[in-house]
Amino acid sequence: MVRLHRRGDRHDLRDLTVAIRFEGEYTESYADGDNRDVLPTDTMKNTVYAVAGRDGVGEPEAFGLVLSDHFLERNARLERVTVDMTDHFWRRIAVGAHEHGQAFVRAGPDARTARVVRARGFVAIDAGISDLLILKSGRSAFEGYARDQFTTLPEARDRILATSVTATWRYRTADVDYGTTWRAIRQTLLETFAEHDSRSVQHTLYDMGEAVVQNLDVVESIHLVMPNKHHLPVDLSVFGLENRNEVFVPTEEPHGLIEATIAR
Amino acid sequence: MVRLHRRGDRHDLRDLTVAIRFEGEYTESYADGDNRDVLPTDTMKNTVYAVAGRDGVGEPEAFGLVLSDHFLERNARLERVTVDMTDHFWRRIAVGAHEHGQAFVRAGPDARTARVVRARGFVAIDAGISDLLILKSGRSAFEGYARDQFTTLPEARDRILATSVTATWRYRTADVDYGTTWRAIRQTLLETFAEHDSRSVQHTLYDMGEAVVQNLDVVESIHLVMPNKHHLPVDLSVFGLENRNEVFVPTEEPHGLIEATIAR
Amino acid sequence: MVRLHRRGDRHDLRDLTVAIRFEGEYTESYADGDNRDVLPTDTMKNTVYAVAGRDGVGEPEAFGLVLSDHFLERNARLERVTVDMTDHFWRRIAVGAHEHGQAFVRAGPDARTARVVRARGFVAIDAGISDLLILKSGRSAFEGYARDQFTTLPEARDRILATSVTATWRYRTADVDYGTTWRAIRQTLLETFAEHDSRSVQHTLYDMGEAVVQNLDVVESIHLVMPNKHHLPVDLSVFGLENRNEVFVPTEEPHGLIEATIAR
Amino acid sequence: MVRLHRRGDRHDLRDLTVAIRFEGEYTESYADGDNRDVLPTDTMKNTVYAVAGRDGVGEPEAFGLVLSDHFLERNARLERVTVDMTDHFWRRIAVGAHEHGQAFVRAGPDARTARVVRARGFVAIDAGISDLLILKSGRSAFEGYARDQFTTLPEARDRILATSVTATWRYRTADVDYGTTWRAIRQTLLETFAEHDSRSVQHTLYDMGEAVVQNLDVVESIHLVMPNKHHLPVDLSVFGLENRNEVFVPTEEPHGLIEATIAR
Repeated sequence: MVRLHRRGDRHDLRDLTVAIRFEGEYTESYADGDNRDVLPTDTMKNTVYAVAGRDGVGEPEAFGLVLSDHFLERNARLERVTVDMTDHFWRRIAVGAHEHGQAFVRAGPDARTARVVRARGFVAIDAGISDLLILKSGRSAFEGYARDQFTTLPEARDRILATSVTATWRYRTADVDYGTTWRAIRQTLLETFAEHDSRSVQHTLYDMGEAVVQNLDVVESIHLVMPNKHHLPVDLSVFGLENRNEVFVPTEEPHGLIEATIAR
Repeated sequence: MVRLHRRGDRHDLRDLTVAIRFEGEYTESYADGDNRDVLPTDTMKNTVYAVAGRDGVGEPEAFGLVLSDHFLERNARLERVTVDMTDHFWRRIAVGAHEHGQAFVRAGPDARTARVVRARGFVAIDAGISDLLILKSGRSAFEGYARDQFTTLPEARDRILATSVTATWRYRTADVDYGTTWRAIRQTLLETFAEHDSRSVQHTLYDMGEAVVQNLDVVESIHLVMPNKHHLPVDLSVFGLENRNEVFVPTEEPHGLIEATIAR
Repeated sequence: MVRLHRRGDRHDLRDLTVAIRFEGEYTESYADGDNRDVLPTDTMKNTVYAVAGRDGVGEPEAFGLVLSDHFLERNARLERVTVDMTDHFWRRIAVGAHEHGQAFVRAGPDARTARVVRARGFVAIDAGISDLLILKSGRSAFEGYARDQFTTLPEARDRILATSVTATWRYRTADVDYGTTWRAIRQTLLETFAEHDSRSVQHTLYDMGEAVVQNLDVVESIHLVMPNKHHLPVDLSVFGLENRNEVFVPTEEPHGLIEATIAR
Repeated sequence: MVRLHRRGDRHDLRDLTVAIRFEGEYTESYADGDNRDVLPTDTMKNTVYAVAGRDGVGEPEAFGLVLSDHFLERNARLERVTVDMTDHFWRRIAVGAHEHGQAFVRAGPDARTARVVRARGFVAIDAGISDLLILKSGRSAFEGYARDQFTTLPEARDRILATSVTATWRYRTADVDYGTTWRAIRQTLLETFAEHDSRSVQHTLYDMGEAVVQNLDVVESIHLVMPNKHHLPVDLSVFGLENRNEVFVPTEEPHGLIEATIAR
């Protein structure tokens, strides 16, 4: 869904993908084909458009709180509703020294995510980031690991470390400035990654997660998933050239996928 | 990995994608960058190749049992290892009346999956199917559902029901003829889908799962995920043509995703 | 588009993706924004549905001939119209010994393609196949190639040859039994691939194309694109195991893409 | 390939995907399986790494000129070689007020492309941009188009215009500051898109291409491909809400794809 907010010549734009998940006591629907308490996915979709039109769409977390409340109140068999959102970034196009009010260029590839889980008497608010591709070409090693009869990997004192971060964190409260906090967490993840003396993907992942929990009081815990996007150095010496560890082949598969949750 | 078994002029082929997941007490690796007990993903990969070369690859479930045992025995900090496998189908090419011994054509799009989860004193064996695309053009309705102020969906007495099944079932025992059972379950899913008088995706999903649990004693439970791949009928009357519910537009998004677990 | 043909209890199904390309003298539309002679893509889409509803959809080639004629007759500025079609296969689900009349399972991954190009006083009919994945594990070598200072590839006397064939052929006439001919060409491609003593992808590609042109009089020429989907043998001797050329790693990139046109 | 240039603490990074296409008189290779004049794709790949290591990688166009010359000189049967390159952007991570010398975050989704085509006595240098996603929410209409019996599209005086631009332009000379020119053309495309009073995608496409040819003397011609990424307005009045043309559903298919070449 794209929600446009027209403020005269200056339009604001929210480009949000929304997924809604119902969990509950729907045995009669599944076992007997009794649809009386089944809310069609088509109606869920319409509800998203209608609420967006009626109330506008500000921070995704706030929008998810409204939607989840709407569904839980009106569906008696519903025990838990999850609203997952992905917010795609559009930047205003600069024309000369000015930002254009009605023309946008997509920024990325990373996107902002949010999730609201609501049950009877329970609500959880998560936010996150997906597809944050980062790479460091210095201060990254992988040495001293376990060895067995199948080990062939050479130790690396100076390797490229590249990954695509998927992070999800839980807020301790709903009293959060969601947009500002999201940008602060993104910046904390980037800076910590850049500055870390990495001994492994695990090591850097932990440092990034710990920095978020330490720097941002509103964060209860953070889950990080970081695939190891291997960059294999090419041995140029076989071509009679000096080898200065400067040419790399990115490989997709097989790769390692590292993940952990760091809690307060 | 492709594992070739050469039996004279007749080769057997196994095309298996393997993913291995370690869970355990690795705090020192994450927090301190101490790699001493970290088995590199590169070594895991080599282990898959070496075990496949040494022992051959028969049924994926059996291969997963060997691999998971190998890793759990040799890695003291490892608490739980999960081996996920996808088995891609290749059929022998027919030349005249004969099947060729060394030439294959890919069949699909569905694939066979298997998962072995092993912990200290625990093992679970799951099998499954992914990307099984099925469609029925008769005996499928969706009526009598809940209505609210945002409902616009017209009731359908005769609609196309299309989905891409992802099924995963758990075996009650390791004493299973995995290949034969897998084919029997696939056939049960297909036949039940074909014969069902469907009142909703949920209704058909339940019937399919129930048939598997009832027909196959070795199955403990089955989890089914079935997205509703909507096929919207085109109203030809606006073009001055008779409308016989015969032209449909498949739409990707937005769509519903239905899932449930049916246990014995 | 899915076109259903209801013949009592037995439905026939055509699942066709259609792309239409207009080329012509549209300077005023581009340069001046004059839309008077612009047929919206929305109307093209509607036309596909309406013609499919009115006339039914039989062989894609025949459907493309009707569509292209429709557009060329009604749009004066149109100089050339191309109709590209992909026909996705659905097989009837077998229930016991019988085929079900209204339930289908997707077959593939290969699909049938067709293209009709029509201009004033000109028409060309092409057919083809896409995503035909084939693999041979015997009678495939790659030796005696050019060498220079950057050559590191070892010669292979017995390698896996795997590819995903995209074939497009032009018919010499419109008087073709399109469905039967398509199946005969698919079978010729498969059998020739299976039987060939391959010295390279190029060598096998040529033999496959030549067989089609020789066996099928209605074919004027055939264009084949065959990426070399490398399967690298794993050297098990580094693990202390005997190396019998039986374990392979499929690699996606970098790869070679071989193509050629073989004309009568 | 990732090429790192180490300049003390500050590394420069080039992340380049390279595709090389040989065309020539290779009949003996295809028809007879004679590989003597076949340069393996593996050697082409090695050549890219070796040349990158030996000479470094500056502007993609210059790298393509070196590579194409290398191949054409050494392969007698080669008549034409095409080097296609995609340059993926990485921005330095900002740490406080400073840019980090060795840590990068991927920017996009748009990428820079370049193509060098070289034959005996001929060379052409193209550059381009891919995946430039742009959207305008004002000054965009589509009215007054051709109508027939299948027209259902309502006229739009104020619609969202969204597209993913793929542009390729040819330089009139090799005496170009490639990086500066590329950025100037990207900016010209963006500004023209933002400022245009659009009557159709075609109309805006032409204006963008014309601006590039007029503003940049070194450009001979430009080819633009712009799919119409439809954003359908949701009619909120059916939900009892006021309809202010503010809620839109992006749809993937079916869509229109507009393209044209604008030459000097």
